[in-house]
Amino acid sequence: MGKKLLWINPFKTDLFDETFRNELAKIKQPDTVVDVVSLPPALGPTHLEYSSYEVMIMPDMLKAVKRAEEEGYDAAIIGCFYDPMLRAAREISKKMVVTAPAEACLHIATTLGESLSIIVGRRKWIPEMKENVHKYGFADKLASFKHIEMGVHDFQKDHDETLKRMKFAAREAVEKDGANVIVLGCTVEFGFYHSLQEELGVPVIDASIAPVKYAEFLVEINKKFGWGHSKLDGYQSPPEEEVNHWKLFG
Amino acid sequence: MGKKLLWINPFKTDLFDETFRNELAKIKQPDTVVDVVSLPPALGPTHLEYSSYEVMIMPDMLKAVKRAEEEGYDAAIIGCFYDPMLRAAREISKKMVVTAPAEACLHIATTLGESLSIIVGRRKWIPEMKENVHKYGFADKLASFKHIEMGVHDFQKDHDETLKRMKFAAREAVEKDGANVIVLGCTVEFGFYHSLQEELGVPVIDASIAPVKYAEFLVEINKKFGWGHSKLDGYQSPPEEEVNHWKLFG
Amino acid sequence: MGKKLLWINPFKTDLFDETFRNELAKIKQPDTVVDVVSLPPALGPTHLEYSSYEVMIMPDMLKAVKRAEEEGYDAAIIGCFYDPMLRAAREISKKMVVTAPAEACLHIATTLGESLSIIVGRRKWIPEMKENVHKYGFADKLASFKHIEMGVHDFQKDHDETLKRMKFAAREAVEKDGANVIVLGCTVEFGFYHSLQEELGVPVIDASIAPVKYAEFLVEINKKFGWGHSKLDGYQSPPEEEVNHWKLFG
Amino acid sequence: MGKKLLWINPFKTDLFDETFRNELAKIKQPDTVVDVVSLPPALGPTHLEYSSYEVMIMPDMLKAVKRAEEEGYDAAIIGCFYDPMLRAAREISKKMVVTAPAEACLHIATTLGESLSIIVGRRKWIPEMKENVHKYGFADKLASFKHIEMGVHDFQKDHDETLKRMKFAAREAVEKDGANVIVLGCTVEFGFYHSLQEELGVPVIDASIAPVKYAEFLVEINKKFGWGHSKLDGYQSPPEEEVNHWKLFG
Amino acid sequence: MGKKLLWINPFKTDLFDETFRNELAKIKQPDTVVDVVSLPPALGPTHLEYSSYEVMIMPDMLKAVKRAEEEGYDAAIIGCFYDPMLRAAREISKKMVVTAPAEACLHIATTLGESLSIIVGRRKWIPEMKENVHKYGFADKLASFKHIEMGVHDFQKDHDETLKRMKFAAREAVEKDGANVIVLGCTVEFGFYHSLQEELGVPVIDASIAPVKYAEFLVEINKKFGWGHSKLDGYQSPPEEEVNHWKLFG
Amino acid sequence: MGKKLLWINPFKTDLFDETFRNELAKIKQPDTVVDVVSLPPALGPTHLEYSSYEVMIMPDMLKAVKRAEEEGYDAAIIGCFYDPMLRAAREISKKMVVTAPAEACLHIATTLGESLSIIVGRRKWIPEMKENVHKYGFADKLASFKHIEMGVHDFQKDHDETLKRMKFAAREAVEKDGANVIVLGCTVEFGFYHSLQEELGVPVIDASIAPVKYAEFLVEINKKFGWGHSKLDGYQSPPEEEVNHWKLFG
Repeated sequence: MGKKLLWINPFKTDLFDETFRNELAKIKQPDTVVDVVSLPPALGPTHLEYSSYEVMIMPDMLKAVKRAEEEGYDAAIIGCFYDPMLRAAREISKKMVVTAPAEACLHIATTLGESLSIIVGRRKWIPEMKENVHKYGFADKLASFKHIEMGVHDFQKDHDETLKRMKFAAREAVEKDGANVIVLGCTVEFGFYHSLQEELGVPVIDASIAPVKYAEFLVEINKKFGWGHSKLDGYQSPPEEEVNHWKLFG
Repeated sequence: MGKKLLWINPFKTDLFDETFRNELAKIKQPDTVVDVVSLPPALGPTHLEYSSYEVMIMPDMLKAVKRAEEEGYDAAIIGCFYDPMLRAAREISKKMVVTAPAEACLHIATTLGESLSIIVGRRKWIPEMKENVHKYGFADKLASFKHIEMGVHDFQKDHDETLKRMKFAAREAVEKDGANVIVLGCTVEFGFYHSLQEELGVPVIDASIAPVKYAEFLVEINKKFGWGHSKLDGYQSPPEEEVNHWKLFG
Repeated sequence: MGKKLLWINPFKTDLFDETFRNELAKIKQPDTVVDVVSLPPALGPTHLEYSSYEVMIMPDMLKAVKRAEEEGYDAAIIGCFYDPMLRAAREISKKMVVTAPAEACLHIATTLGESLSIIVGRRKWIPEMKENVHKYGFADKLASFKHIEMGVHDFQKDHDETLKRMKFAAREAVEKDGANVIVLGCTVEFGFYHSLQEELGVPVIDASIAPVKYAEFLVEINKKFGWGHSKLDGYQSPPEEEVNHWKLFG
Repeated sequence: MGKKLLWINPFKTDLFDETFRNELAKIKQPDTVVDVVSLPPALGPTHLEYSSYEVMIMPDMLKAVKRAEEEGYDAAIIGCFYDPMLRAAREISKKMVVTAPAEACLHIATTLGESLSIIVGRRKWIPEMKENVHKYGFADKLASFKHIEMGVHDFQKDHDETLKRMKFAAREAVEKDGANVIVLGCTVEFGFYHSLQEELGVPVIDASIAPVKYAEFLVEINKKFGWGHSKLDGYQSPPEEEVNHWKLFG
Repeated sequence: MGKKLLWINPFKTDLFDETFRNELAKIKQPDTVVDVVSLPPALGPTHLEYSSYEVMIMPDMLKAVKRAEEEGYDAAIIGCFYDPMLRAAREISKKMVVTAPAEACLHIATTLGESLSIIVGRRKWIPEMKENVHKYGFADKLASFKHIEMGVHDFQKDHDETLKRMKFAAREAVEKDGANVIVLGCTVEFGFYHSLQEELGVPVIDASIAPVKYAEFLVEINKKFGWGHSKLDGYQSPPEEEVNHWKLFG
Repeated sequence: MGKKLLWINPFKTDLFDETFRNELAKIKQPDTVVDVVSLPPALGPTHLEYSSYEVMIMPDMLKAVKRAEEEGYDAAIIGCFYDPMLRAAREISKKMVVTAPAEACLHIATTLGESLSIIVGRRKWIPEMKENVHKYGFADKLASFKHIEMGVHDFQKDHDETLKRMKFAAREAVEKDGANVIVLGCTVEFGFYHSLQEELGVPVIDASIAPVKYAEFLVEINKKFGWGHSKLDGYQSPPEEEVNHWKLFG
């Protein structure tokens, strides 16, 4: 059963597309296709560290989700650890599943360990992410957030420096805060989980890999058993007439 | 100390603007100005019952917030009980305060009573609103949500019918669910709080009045004591250079 | 619409009355009157650091609340950060609203920021205050309590020393505990919020100012919309006959 | 090891003293003495259904607690299911333990079952009691409150009627709300637990018996192992000098 | 990448083995092998409705888990919705992952919907299962438990009757309790999810299918990324010497 | 009223039996008999630091509980701070009460203080114990766990060393984590509470004494008032026929 996934880099830059395409190709299932898109090229945010940046590109993101279902994708992945507009994306998807990094990482982390810490770039990110941890139900499993004073575009600049900071933060999380699983809280923190894991001896969940695997899982149970997002309440789709009349997601 | 507030009807219709302008003029403080705007006239959602509709007009909403501060407003009120994009709006506001109906109603209701029910139009709305009740800290004060099978545009169609349904739902909330305060969970449920309150004998909080009064309160403490939104973490403003370079909120 | 507020210093000393009178006169609305009283002069507690002291002066406090309504006050403010006997005070008030410092500060702080720390005098105070933070719904927003080893009557002795300790504690709260709003957890910690705020760059909520402004807010919505304390359950007034027969609050 | 307990009926009536004396004599340990007092005879509340009544007699209550320790009692029991001024009573007690009905009933009920309902007289009582259930940590074990439309002085008027209402409420609690333990939420609901228990087949905890037995337990571990209330934080005693100077609890 | 899973029917009967073998063969991935075993044939519990039955067969269960890893299985699934001894099973597994029905169903259900109800056989089962729902973090997503007055061995006796009762309970969960996802709370409730789902229009999660799919997912991320159970704290393996010396799991 | 208690050392060693017999004889009530047994002598775990060890000896433990009731014991105490198989033990007991160290210590500690820390041997133990703290309702009262790097069999080796480490950990708990009550989180941490208490000035609850006293308390209220474990839901006994047919607990 082939699976067709779309990873959406919700930035106005295709800077990471090629890398993601290559990296995700390595970790997908054999019969899965993972396509990677970013938002329509135009002047605009190249990262989403600010909630106001999220807002400004959400319509493009949502249109990308809509288009994904029309083009036959089985799942869309919103490639930002804030899990932006997850409810909206599920609303407009009729059968397609939608997931996102924090959701995927947290479900995995709480199955693998009992106390997790999240390594983020900046302190600024924490309140929005903490809100999500609580919303998903994992407040009691949260040992700490650790910030390493780096922006989204810093992680891949000097790999040694990034790794050094991540190790320091993760070690503190494990030794002082009581974490036994680490989550990397940004999709652009890719490429480090393996070294960290080797060094720390606890699972380190990568925010770009996790949602792809979770999406494959969700697609499979959706196709086989009809277990898709419930369309009764929060994820109920808007009426076709309104959507068409307003040409909303075209 | 004059206060300049902007009520933003986050819809692509000015249908309610005039009514809100008149109604809010009656309830504001003497030295307050409450202006009412809706989003730029164009084809688009005339209500926000769906999260995907919220998303599509958020950039316009955010621009309206941005413009409000530039035009000298002291506060912006996002006129939808989902309290959409509150974090983003606070991020981009440097000094101006921003509030929204659910936040305002819930802070008031939990000061006035000990157990509250929220009367909404449709069951569909509940998950997003419940999420907010929990986020704000009021899960333990929530007696119930009651839905009266009406959409945003139905409330003002047949006032008798609306009032009848509201009374039935509110009475059930009070008598069976243990509520001692009622919150009307949509800004377009205006005009009914007084009759309900008379009949039920408990406070009934109106979602269009509450945020205006809460905004006046916040503006006053902001101007007098510098108590505005903390700019340290979640509400930190994005860097000017990026915003300017991307012409983001123009 | 004039507002008549009564600030009750719940101590057997008028030591702070004059200062509060002057300070609150500066921060009130133009058409507000804030009167300040302390409890009937007699030997008794001059501070409420102990719950047993609270208890001993509660009847006087409650009588002061009762008298306030009879004398036409629109609101009574119980001037202690333990928010003593708030339910009782609301019970015996028929129309008058009653508020208190912790309630006011916490509603404000959670609207302005996402994580708050409370600076108290002694560790002894924390359990009762923490109980209130949880009761009001703000457990998840509480970063920490910090104690600066000072009693109620120490704060105003050596302003430099007090400020020094407050700065140290507040800085630790912000930098280590993740707070982005500070609350000063005693009404006698007045006079410091402004310097702290300047230095720290986050809102610092003063426990004497906040409840006065919150009271003005509550009075306004009470008078205009009838939004007073719900008299249905916990705040239901005792029957007149019993009260009169027992000459209870005379 | 003899134990000397004082049951304090916190009312201005000795109406129930004799009955309590007789009833508690039957259920105490052989070497326990349970004395029963009510507050100094004077005009005043003969029940505590209102929080404002509690407040007015608290000083007398606290003095009774203070005197109890001076007279050599090992424990004082505050005989009201609101558990009034428990912290204050523990503060002023140096070695003596203090407990109260709700605390005792809830610790027992959550050890015996997994889901409890509390049968109260009036809906008015619920918010204050619910607050205590949450404060003690048992929110997740609370199935429901049931009110049977009776005041404190009604329970013992017509035993058949009272029992009938209690059975109806308890049965509903067990069958509809999922309770598997029942707590009688007023000390004056005495005399019914046995019949209810027989009929319902689940434990029914009596609010006058439970705190006496819990007090005996606490006294024993206090005397033998020095396990009394921690005097470090919330229960720290006020300084002797202040207490003496103000002649506070004399 | 072939996956080798072992489904353990934790009963002293092979009554369901053949059926599970056939059913799971239909829903597994092509390169997965799902073997099914029950516990060593001997007199003993043929169902686990009682916690005391669980206890009595836990050693056999744990040995089955141990043997599974030795025989090269990639995952063991403990086939009971109480998720018995999950921590112990993860402790003794060095690399193999272990999961169980409630864990799997709840992670899926909370990803697909926002409010779930669990259909169980008897009221007796609820406390243990509710404890797990809370433990996993999903208390806020739990709409209700519904019991249909059937034991484990009743579900497959009269399919029409079972389905009738399930439909009634599930409909009530959806319409009255606000559920938008249904979970079938027993592995022997197999065979009904599809009809229920068709009728109700919301996802109905089957407790025998869900853990197999979740196990496949966990195996894949374990093999590919080394994301297995954290061995640092709660899942740390016991020392070999002790295990060998005591011949513990042989 | 004589009380017959059985302390079950749930290990395959009688190493501690004699000591417990002597120590518990000193702290029991005069008319109480406390017998001490360990599990049938055979090769097997001599401590329960691992959940997998718990599992392997649970059937023997459960049989010991069953036998206890048959032999006329009024209470069984499961002598391990993980409180293993408490539900199962209550299920199979018809009238006899069952308790365990964590339950007893936590109910006592939360009555004596407001914030508790638990001193454990190893970090490994924390997740299972923390789960229990949350399950019993005391999450909000938990200041911290402290581990002193000792196994069960280390505590009694070098008393000075053990005491030194305990003092260090407890002091940190009190001074840094805000604890005002200490709980010793292992039954084999006996013999130290008194010195610690003297030194720290806060109650230090011993995990071997506490459950015996709590058991005496529970026995008394069970015998006098019929307040035993509710047999309605989670503690419902399995049907005799099944138990007999399978010769389950013989």
